[in-house]
Order: sequence, then C-alpha cells, then structure tokens
Amino acid sequence: MTYVLHYAPDNASLIVRLALEHRGLPFDTRLVDRRTQSQRSAAYLALNPHGLIPVLETPQGPLFETGAIVLWLGDTHGGLGPGPQSPDRGAYLKWLFFTANTLHPVLRMMFYPEKYIGPDSAHHTALRTGLHNQICAALAALEQIAASRPDWLGAQSPSALDFYIAACLRWCALYPTNVPRGWFDLGATPALAALCKRLECLPCVHAVQTAEGLGATPFTAPQYANPPHGSAT
Amino acid sequence: MTYVLHYAPDNASLIVRLALEHRGLPFDTRLVDRRTQSQRSAAYLALNPHGLIPVLETPQGPLFETGAIVLWLGDTHGGLGPGPQSPDRGAYLKWLFFTANTLHPVLRMMFYPEKYIGPDSAHHTALRTGLHNQICAALAALEQIAASRPDWLGAQSPSALDFYIAACLRWCALYPTNVPRGWFDLGATPALAALCKRLECLPCVHAVQTAEGLGATPFTAPQYANPPHGSAT
Repeated sequence: MTYVLHYAPDNASLIVRLALEHRGLPFDTRLVDRRTQSQRSAAYLALNPHGLIPVLETPQGPLFETGAIVLWLGDTHGGLGPGPQSPDRGAYLKWLFFTANTLHPVLRMMFYPEKYIGPDSAHHTALRTGLHNQICAALAALEQIAASRPDWLGAQSPSALDFYIAACLRWCALYPTNVPRGWFDLGATPALAALCKRLECLPCVHAVQTAEGLGATPFTAPQYANPPHGSAT
Repeated sequence: MTYVLHYAPDNASLIVRLALEHRGLPFDTRLVDRRTQSQRSAAYLALNPHGLIPVLETPQGPLFETGAIVLWLGDTHGGLGPGPQSPDRGAYLKWLFFTANTLHPVLRMMFYPEKYIGPDSAHHTALRTGLHNQICAALAALEQIAASRPDWLGAQSPSALDFYIAACLRWCALYPTNVPRGWFDLGATPALAALCKRLECLPCVHAVQTAEGLGATPFTAPQYANPPHGSAT
C-alpha cells in the first residue's frame, strides 16, 4: 500500500520522510498547516489525540511517535537499522529510546517552554539554561556511540537513528528562533558532524531538501526552511 | 543465561523486574545503593553513562532505557505484548514510545526539577503546575486506549506497557514526597484503575511486592516502599 505521511516542513515528520525516501517506500503526503493550527483540528486529532506531527497512515492504522514509526518501518521493511534478530538490536533500541525520550522531549521543551512552565519569560530563561545542559550531555553521550560504534551509527548504510539524530542537531542550530545559539556547536561532536556530512550525500536527503526547502547543507550548516508548501512553525 | 538487573527499590527497574518475573526469566539482582549515590560510581557509569536506573545485563551487553529493555525482552522471549508480526504492533509501539517519552520524562522532571531549572523553588512550583497538566493529559490519553482496546492494554495477559503504566501511576500517587497530591486521582481514569487492580492479582506482582517492600496494593492504593534492602530515593 501507499503510506500517507501527515507532515509540516522541518517538523519531526522530516525523520519519517527521510526513512521512507531512503527505503524507497511509496508514500503520499498531507500538509498539516501549522499557520492555521491544523494539528488541533478534529480531523487531525482523530489521527493523533496529542495533536503532534507526524502521523503515518499504515495498514495497521495511523501511527504516531516518531521513534515508534521509524522502528515499525524498519522492522516491517528492513534496511533502517539492526532488526529483531540482530546482535546489535539491544544497543540500537536503547539509543533509539534514549534519543526519543531524552534528547527529543528536551528539544520540545526548549521550543515550547510555555507548555511546561507558563508564560513568564524569567521561568523560560531558567528552564532553557537547564535544558541546554541536558541537550549537551545527551549529544556527548551520542557522540561517544557514534565514535565507538561506526558499524551501526553513522555508518555507510544509515539507520533511522542516524536520521533522528541529524534532525535533532539541525533543530539545535535553528530553533527556537528568538534565542541566542551560542550554547550549541556541532564541532563539539565531531563523530556526529561526520554522520551529518555523510547523510548529506544521500539521495534521500536531497529529495527531502527539495520537498521541504531545507537548503544545501541541512545538517552541517542548516538554514531556516523555505518550503514550497506550508510552514515550519 | 541469567540476566542481571541493576535496580533500586521502587525505581524504574521495577518495570523490568515485573516483566522478568511475569515471563519467569532467570535473573539475579544487584542493588544500586542510592543513599551512597552508587548510580554515579565509575562501575555503574560504565554500564549506563547517564547514571540512571535500571540496567539489565544481557548477552547483547548492558541495556538501559526502560522502554528499550522491556521491548527487547518481549521480542526475545515473547509474552509481553504484541510482537513484530502482530497486527497490533504499530499501536503497541506508538503507545509504548508515548509512555516512555512523554509520561515518564515528565514524571522525572517532577521528581527532580532542579536538574532542569536550577534550585529556585519558585521556578519549581511553576514547572510542577505545567507538568501536572501534562501528566493528566497523558493519562487521559492512555485511559482512552485502555477503555477502547482491552484486547491488548489492561488485558488478562498483561503487556510490558501495562507494567509501565501501573508503575507510573504508583509514582504519581507517591513522589516527590514533599509536594501535595491533590492534583492526582486514580479514580479519574477508571480503565487504568482496573488495569492496576488486575495486575495486583498476578504472581509476578506479589513477588515484586515482597522483593521491594511495596505493600499489599502497590498500584491501586500505594504506600511508600519499605524495602528489605536499599532505598527508593
């Protein structure tokens, strides 16, 4: 069947789109228009009650949670990381969950502090300082794995985790737009920077760059998305 | 082989222990003594660089991330939820990831706000209000699934996700010890309360109650752990 990806440019749907493109899986896209808050519409909430992007419509129904979708795609079609029979499966799962439940949620909090701590900007500033520390610690841990396990992270044949990490690094460099970027330096994690550089040579990344207007170097020197359709924020 | 579970009473290791007991898998335990901050020792950090509990030593090396461990155990031994070939696999994964990367991290923030926002108690109060709202929304979403999909959540034969949710509900009722509990009411989620009640009839739960001193009703009417060894905090 043809999958249907509900996406917004440069949102977490980017990771799922990269996985679909990399495996050459047939998919249609449905733009979730963030400018009109389409992710809060009744139709979208019926797909994902949390109103978060992405959703992937599959024969098993609408899937959400980026980590769950890419793991399911990998287990269903192969070619996106160590499968259930691989001796590296445990290590792959632990770092995939770590990325999904430590790095990614902390990024979300950095982007939308008001959802966690209300509108007071003094609280936001205090929270962001703590979050920056958390993100840097998470990236340092992933750097160690990319440096020590090049057989399955940052490898010639990328896993879904490669895409996930590269997207998070991109967002660290860009969002939220109203906060100084001094805390983040891709050069501090050279193995992750190499992972990003390798991904930028892949046809799947070129396809997604065009589709979502991500520019020539979406991971190593990212620029704000200039998408042909929709809006990143 | 015999697994080795590095645990502290009433910590996230509880979920892994329930899964191991439920499947009758052979395992030894190693107490991580939180009173002496053993989780920050060099020996423990070699197992989990994040210094978090649990770690499960396996033939694939030391695994961490509760969600990853229980998914790996289920896929390796079966009997802990929909497997890779199940038509419910996608739904199972999306709710497992949701629990691991929305409900569980928000609980951690509620327990340890200083790690995210520094020592100022005014910031903690503001953060906790937001987190309570997030937790209630997450529980409401899980309630809907437990009510509508009793075939695989809250079922006669529990999945690892049942254990995960029940433990989170227990912690909502108990921790942190210095904050009023008025925000949380298990009765607001009757399908999840029924899930908890059903689990309390299982031999695996009785075994873990004894091992970690969790009392007679660890999920429906929890009391602070009174463990024979170690400390919950």
